Amino acid sequence: MRLYNSQLSGNCWKARQILAHRGIDYERVELDVFDRSDRPEILGGKNPALRVPTLELDDGECLAESNAILWYLADGSEYLPDAPLSRARVLQWMFFEQYELEPAIATARFLIALMDAKEQHLDQLEPKWRAGNRALGFLESHLATGREWLVGDAYSAADISIYAYTHVAEEGEFDLSQYPSVETWVDRVTAVPGHVAMSD
Amino acid sequence: MRLYNSQLSGNCWKARQILAHRGIDYERVELDVFDRSDRPEILGGKNPALRVPTLELDDGECLAESNAILWYLADGSEYLPDAPLSRARVLQWMFFEQYELEPAIATARFLIALMDAKEQHLDQLEPKWRAGNRALGFLESHLATGREWLVGDAYSAADISIYAYTHVAEEGEFDLSQYPSVETWVDRVTAVPGHVAMSD
Repeated sequence: MRLYNSQLSGNCWKARQILAHRGIDYERVELDVFDRSDRPEILGGKNPALRVPTLELDDGECLAESNAILWYLADGSEYLPDAPLSRARVLQWMFFEQYELEPAIATARFLIALMDAKEQHLDQLEPKWRAGNRALGFLESHLATGREWLVGDAYSAADISIYAYTHVAEEGEFDLSQYPSVETWVDRVTAVPGHVAMSD
Repeated sequence: MRLYNSQLSGNCWKARQILAHRGIDYERVELDVFDRSDRPEILGGKNPALRVPTLELDDGECLAESNAILWYLADGSEYLPDAPLSRARVLQWMFFEQYELEPAIATARFLIALMDAKEQHLDQLEPKWRAGNRALGFLESHLATGREWLVGDAYSAADISIYAYTHVAEEGEFDLSQYPSVETWVDRVTAVPGHVAMSD
């Protein structure tokens, strides 16, 4: 398999994490997160949205969207539950991630930690901080009931999806100490056997 | 089953459409799209994000996120393909919908057609129009290759998901005639047996 990757992207980390868990060998093609001018040439015909991660299978078929890739590689393994309602709950968290959490935290992190452009973008950051804190609050309320994992009683693709940007939220100037159950859960996910770091 | 619903919401339409296709009887609890003050009381404990649609199953278990609900109700039926890669491609379109298409088109439609507040929000609408047109362009490029349906050769949950806001894009002042393959596909989905209208 070939992964079109940006090492700094939490979305790409999801794919790298499940590929590591499954012990799948793959080639990485590194794309720049700043200069996107080569994307039509490299990703055209592979992903209509020209984004990473994009996964190219051994037969040349391609799959896009980080959570669809994560689902595809987790399905049939211990990283995705079997019961239909539990599977739908994994998807619920994945859609929550792409709608509520990622657009807020990833954007704040990009502007502050990757672009070093906080002061120029304060007007854009304010609504991202509000939205991200609301999403982290939802997550806290779910985990504060004593759950160890997001769905059922086992680590799953839902945890991988939500961890991707939550564990780097402080790079977007979110204060995770306000969300103690989230903070404990982040440490729990980091300690899972086979965990890979963003830099790996 | 009980559906926490807003009749004007394309996200809720997805749930109503698959419930109709599957012939499932359900109760609707209508929530206001403008006044959201009663949501903690009604949706608290059912959906951490306090959004509609939320589906309450006969045993009281709840499921949130429109595309997770759509997936759950389509799984095992003709509305979801069997092959793992095809299933992941349905998810790819659902994530594309929640990340690229819905935030742009639904917001523009809300401000213009539901709030009647276009002039006051032109600064917010400009980036939504740009993002929505980019998403419609991606969709056009996918469908312009001669495909009848988004995934494989059959109508699926992917078509239901993308149709929800695409078929009302003109209410957000998007010009669908610029996307002729999308326009033809919208008509094709509308003609599917068992189709329900947004008002149904």
